[in-house]
Amino acid sequence: MDFLEQAKGLMPALHERWVFPEEQTKPGLRYMGKGDSFTLDFGTHLVGYFQIRFETDREPDSPLKIIFRFAEVPCELEIDVDQKNYRGSLSSTWFQQETVNMDNPTELLCLHRRYSFRYVQVIFPGNTHYQVRYVNSACRAVSSADEAAVLPLPREFAEKDPLLAEIDEISVRTLRDCMQAVFEDGPKRDRRLWLGDLFLQAKANYVTFKKNSLVLRCLYLFAGLPHSDGCMSSAVYCEPTLSGQAWILHDYAMLFIGTLADYYEETGDLNVLKELWPTAFHQAEIVANSLNEEGHVPENLYFIDWCESLDKSAAAQGLSIAMMKRGVWLAELLGAENELKQLKCWIARLSAGARDFYNKDLRIFRGRSGQISVASQMWMILAGVLDLQENNRVLDAMADCSDAVSTVTPYAMHFYVEALIACGRMQEAIHLVKRYWGGMARQQADCFWEVYVPDNPEASPYGDKRINSYCHAWSCTPTYFIRRFFVPFLQD
Amino acid sequence: MDFLEQAKGLMPALHERWVFPEEQTKPGLRYMGKGDSFTLDFGTHLVGYFQIRFETDREPDSPLKIIFRFAEVPCELEIDVDQKNYRGSLSSTWFQQETVNMDNPTELLCLHRRYSFRYVQVIFPGNTHYQVRYVNSACRAVSSADEAAVLPLPREFAEKDPLLAEIDEISVRTLRDCMQAVFEDGPKRDRRLWLGDLFLQAKANYVTFKKNSLVLRCLYLFAGLPHSDGCMSSAVYCEPTLSGQAWILHDYAMLFIGTLADYYEETGDLNVLKELWPTAFHQAEIVANSLNEEGHVPENLYFIDWCESLDKSAAAQGLSIAMMKRGVWLAELLGAENELKQLKCWIARLSAGARDFYNKDLRIFRGRSGQISVASQMWMILAGVLDLQENNRVLDAMADCSDAVSTVTPYAMHFYVEALIACGRMQEAIHLVKRYWGGMARQQADCFWEVYVPDNPEASPYGDKRINSYCHAWSCTPTYFIRRFFVPFLQD
Repeated sequence: MDFLEQAKGLMPALHERWVFPEEQTKPGLRYMGKGDSFTLDFGTHLVGYFQIRFETDREPDSPLKIIFRFAEVPCELEIDVDQKNYRGSLSSTWFQQETVNMDNPTELLCLHRRYSFRYVQVIFPGNTHYQVRYVNSACRAVSSADEAAVLPLPREFAEKDPLLAEIDEISVRTLRDCMQAVFEDGPKRDRRLWLGDLFLQAKANYVTFKKNSLVLRCLYLFAGLPHSDGCMSSAVYCEPTLSGQAWILHDYAMLFIGTLADYYEETGDLNVLKELWPTAFHQAEIVANSLNEEGHVPENLYFIDWCESLDKSAAAQGLSIAMMKRGVWLAELLGAENELKQLKCWIARLSAGARDFYNKDLRIFRGRSGQISVASQMWMILAGVLDLQENNRVLDAMADCSDAVSTVTPYAMHFYVEALIACGRMQEAIHLVKRYWGGMARQQADCFWEVYVPDNPEASPYGDKRINSYCHAWSCTPTYFIRRFFVPFLQD
Repeated sequence: MDFLEQAKGLMPALHERWVFPEEQTKPGLRYMGKGDSFTLDFGTHLVGYFQIRFETDREPDSPLKIIFRFAEVPCELEIDVDQKNYRGSLSSTWFQQETVNMDNPTELLCLHRRYSFRYVQVIFPGNTHYQVRYVNSACRAVSSADEAAVLPLPREFAEKDPLLAEIDEISVRTLRDCMQAVFEDGPKRDRRLWLGDLFLQAKANYVTFKKNSLVLRCLYLFAGLPHSDGCMSSAVYCEPTLSGQAWILHDYAMLFIGTLADYYEETGDLNVLKELWPTAFHQAEIVANSLNEEGHVPENLYFIDWCESLDKSAAAQGLSIAMMKRGVWLAELLGAENELKQLKCWIARLSAGARDFYNKDLRIFRGRSGQISVASQMWMILAGVLDLQENNRVLDAMADCSDAVSTVTPYAMHFYVEALIACGRMQEAIHLVKRYWGGMARQQADCFWEVYVPDNPEASPYGDKRINSYCHAWSCTPTYFIRRFFVPFLQD
């Protein structure tokens, strides 16, 4: 069975719709020349193809040079046209800027690359003997998500809590714009299928677009592109060549088990489960083989969060246990007795190792370095190393610990909310979602961002926030929390 | 009879050939990144479409940004990438520079615009985590000229005078690269059909490519796009919309008569002559109606040469007479007695007016301002206002006149050579061609230039020589002189 062939067969069709810029941002009837510019606002975040048409005040006697800059948020337009003031570590070529020379300035210009944007800045850098005037423009927005499939929130819920309703809407838009030929991490950057993002996107998808075939396609892609030792690639490049990312991340590999378990839970498709189970189990096996004598995982192979100072040891341990436990559930379903036995044995070793990170006096988990972090607590809670009561004490202890290292990304924040829900703290979970994702909403976010640190608006793992993605898959899960947990909870 | 429809029916097919850069200018196997660049040399001047392929040292994880700069001569590459050091009056958008972002850096990149170049500079301005290496590149060179139609020069001639042979070769290449869907003035700039250029290109074409249908197509285009008073457009834009140039130039309009006469002389096609005669005659009529009381033409409506200080009055007068005399020949052929009578009457008035510019003491023509210029003498000689002996005295007088205003463009120089030939001074004509066009050849010109002033290498009618065209139709006539006059003369 060729996984990649199966993935290919599940290539989704894209839904297209035409979107036009807001009237008041069009430059009107004025003629423009060298040095003039204008910025169109499409009113919301879009992923798609841009086209524009100009007319000239006389027969154009030379080519027209135009610079187009596409931005998800206005700060991206602060980058110089020559990008000299960009200080980030990621490739500057991610900035969505095109320079176009039109031999025929009045013909419809259709840019052929896909952009992720709300704003389009149009600059005329060349001197010409004629001037140009804006005629019209449009974006052919694309997504493999079918918006008609999303059920509206109960009206009463939305009216009672408009902020949660708004957060839900932004989540759905974020997910929609990341759903293309695969679940992309961010349509501006990296436009790539990451396992960590997929795990979360799939959860949000089940309560919204229900495009389960796209989840399956992505599972097949990962299954079809393992490293030579069978370890899952952390990401898949569809372009230029279909290939796996070289970076090995054991937490992402383990999330394959979780993603498969969620998929089965949603679809009940036993054939798929049987087909992908060996691949999933092998990820657990690799992690089991990586343990040191203390039964600790090598945390340098784990991502956990974009946080340089984070001691990942405890979180990595917790995540590994949590995903192995999902594996246990699958092994039981499949009646895979051998693997079940192995998994239980590995979980026992990992759990014993996890205890090393638990400080009984403080009733809190600490990393190998002694560091206390949100990430350590949330993953140990999700691992179920302690019982519910103890887990709640951990959360209380952390609340009292003012110097606990916070999460940086919405990705990590997701698991904190999950941990709160796992501990039955639904009100706290709701409060956190409203405070954290609501913080982006209050800043007029059209989509949720790759990075959001409430007290550091300049935060970027790449040294320049303008290269951050402002529509990022791993931020899309509030709709999952809202639709799966908050709506039922608040209706009770 | 719809002239434009007929022109459309004569749209030429383009001959294509693949040309590759010189081996030693390829960047070899080195990997390149931000700030690196290389310049390919295709060994000769080309007009066509460029394609290139790169490979990367690892899976490319971000787009690749590349700047391409196409240059006919190296000085064009001295223009800044942002063109800030360009000081010319013509549109900066003529510089052949493209910025391309490749989502897939290893795929074959085919730039879709046509370029006129010998050199291609390739610059990598973006920082990426991978590096790129040159694989290959090519130019699909295009021309409507069929090189197989060009007869070689007699071997003995070429061996005896290699400079003339070289000049012939450069002329033919210049003409070839200007022969596209129309006879363009310059394939870099303005890529447009100008009547002054067409008149000369057609002459060169008859002794080389013999693509007479392209001459006819261009005649139809001009005939089909007159100004509202019936005056010929000085130029035709094929793109963006087929239309005439607004600039009215009576000398260019009069050259339509000469171009038609040459076409008939070459083809003997009486039907075409009959069809286009009314249009041609009307140009003479317009000039006749423009005369002032002294029988002088309004020289401000004449181009003559790119020379600001030139007093064009005498030259304009001479050109008008010369072309009317070509009209007389056509009227006689057609038996158009009425028009013949009118033309003769107008020529008489113009010739009487021309006498006002002749200084009997100095035996030279002077403009209204008293200025002595090469342009005045050559056009009055070609007009045949004086007899052969007197014309020769004019040339002698000019030779003694050290402050005579010279010609600036090869276009004007053409008519000076014609005047020398008309006066039977073949050796002088040969000498002038070898000195003037040979001067460009000695500077390794691949094609002949729009502007060449031997003692002013910075000369440009546009304030910056780098915007000059270095493959310009109106410079291509040495092959006409060589093949029609010099070869027979030197063989005798």
